[in-house]
Amino acid sequence: MGNAGNAGSPPGTGAGGAARFAVNQETVRQLSLPELAAACGDLGVAGVGLWRAPVQRYGVAQTARLVRDAGLTVTSLCRGGFLTAADPAGRRRALDDNRAAVDEAAGIGTGTLVLVCGGLPPGDRDLYGARERIADALAELVPHAAGCGVRLAVEALHPMFASDRCVVSTLGQALDLAERFPADRVGVVVDTYHLWWDDRAPAQVERAGRAGRIAAFQLADWCTPLPAGVLLGRGQLGDGSVDFRFWRELVTAAGYTGWTEVEIFNEALRARDGREVLAETLERFRAHVL
Amino acid sequence: MGNAGNAGSPPGTGAGGAARFAVNQETVRQLSLPELAAACGDLGVAGVGLWRAPVQRYGVAQTARLVRDAGLTVTSLCRGGFLTAADPAGRRRALDDNRAAVDEAAGIGTGTLVLVCGGLPPGDRDLYGARERIADALAELVPHAAGCGVRLAVEALHPMFASDRCVVSTLGQALDLAERFPADRVGVVVDTYHLWWDDRAPAQVERAGRAGRIAAFQLADWCTPLPAGVLLGRGQLGDGSVDFRFWRELVTAAGYTGWTEVEIFNEALRARDGREVLAETLERFRAHVL
Repeated sequence: MGNAGNAGSPPGTGAGGAARFAVNQETVRQLSLPELAAACGDLGVAGVGLWRAPVQRYGVAQTARLVRDAGLTVTSLCRGGFLTAADPAGRRRALDDNRAAVDEAAGIGTGTLVLVCGGLPPGDRDLYGARERIADALAELVPHAAGCGVRLAVEALHPMFASDRCVVSTLGQALDLAERFPADRVGVVVDTYHLWWDDRAPAQVERAGRAGRIAAFQLADWCTPLPAGVLLGRGQLGDGSVDFRFWRELVTAAGYTGWTEVEIFNEALRARDGREVLAETLERFRAHVL
Repeated sequence: MGNAGNAGSPPGTGAGGAARFAVNQETVRQLSLPELAAACGDLGVAGVGLWRAPVQRYGVAQTARLVRDAGLTVTSLCRGGFLTAADPAGRRRALDDNRAAVDEAAGIGTGTLVLVCGGLPPGDRDLYGARERIADALAELVPHAAGCGVRLAVEALHPMFASDRCVVSTLGQALDLAERFPADRVGVVVDTYHLWWDDRAPAQVERAGRAGRIAAFQLADWCTPLPAGVLLGRGQLGDGSVDFRFWRELVTAAGYTGWTEVEIFNEALRARDGREVLAETLERFRAHVL
């Protein structure tokens, strides 16, 4: 497994590298899975990133059948992770949940499980210890994931999420964790929303690509002011500060040939017609990424 | 000028290094300057960090007299900066404003002007270009600042401010800028709120300290959820995720012997009695920093 969860060349764009558009389900969460599959069919979108909760609600086997019948590739499943619990019971629960996530990923036919690794436990201030617990948990999960043909994809989250969602804040840290394991077992996610500000990220993309560890490439724009809680402030492509061509060229130069998955959490987009948002997102992708 | 804006040894604590408490005016912005001076006198607080707007309202000469009569040291003036304008008129205005800020710093008797360097101009996505414009602006400002006995202190802001407030997001980037100039002309700010998440910051603190470039050490805690706009979400010491002893030991090991300035922007603190907040902050400093 190299710099992509799925093989194949970009159809119809002629741009090469990371030019294949996929939509992450959360970008258009107002669409049910069948609505999403239909909208993708109408617009010629061939890849979708899915989330565990809607997949569980619809059913893993039913989801697998739906995407197969629609001719869709599942580019990733979001998300496992939250591996920083310090107490034995919390740790055991997290490992069990992640093994279930691996099974779900395999069940819907994707080889990529995205991990949001977890923040600091309540009252804990030890970032270094939390990162070590993530490494320990990965070591426990890798054999099961490997047996299922699923690669774990460590995602660095923006530093504003360091305390409550993910103590892995840079691509360099994500690689430090991933490199303790074979590249076909643990990869990393390159997400522009989380990494765009970091002048050291380009060198880390190169490091990731050289080792064949780029498991997913995700896009969202950076817009301000951020909303309360900051989670739902991601911007539509072109609305913010991210230079997407720079990032596409970066991952392409690093050898990545997989999907480019647009993953935007945004209240305003969710309040609109989902098919219209998907069409707009595809249009923005052509205007700002290709 | 070394790792401190002001000379002298820590009184009464016996802790050495960065053990001298100072309060930044914005932590208790509900207090007028005379009220702040009186409250500091009552609590034995000997250092204050001031802001331009309240100083301008009260008057530069009057502020100088007030702090002198109260026996207070002004540890820093916040803030100059916003040096990223790409158009000649905007750039000229910024330079003029920063020269005025230098004059005000000198006027109130502090040798440290904190710079928040500025975000991306509207529609601009070039972080690298913006950082170069900051370097150019520093080169224009340094001679005037040097003539006034004022050191420019480049502050790295948390990456969540990269687009709209400061494209300098890490201590390493701040040092890359500062090191183009002599250490007694351009230093850096070490602020826990902005740097706490970064595993590369400790090595950069060492780099800064070795070169005598730590111009200010500021504290606030990291708390979530962040409020809308994220600016006023800084936490009282001990309420969040920052390990303050780790940071105090870090700057102390790097040779810093200056003030430790507590700078918290927090709506809830501002809504309370300012003298009570100052007393609480001092108490928290003793409990969580010393």
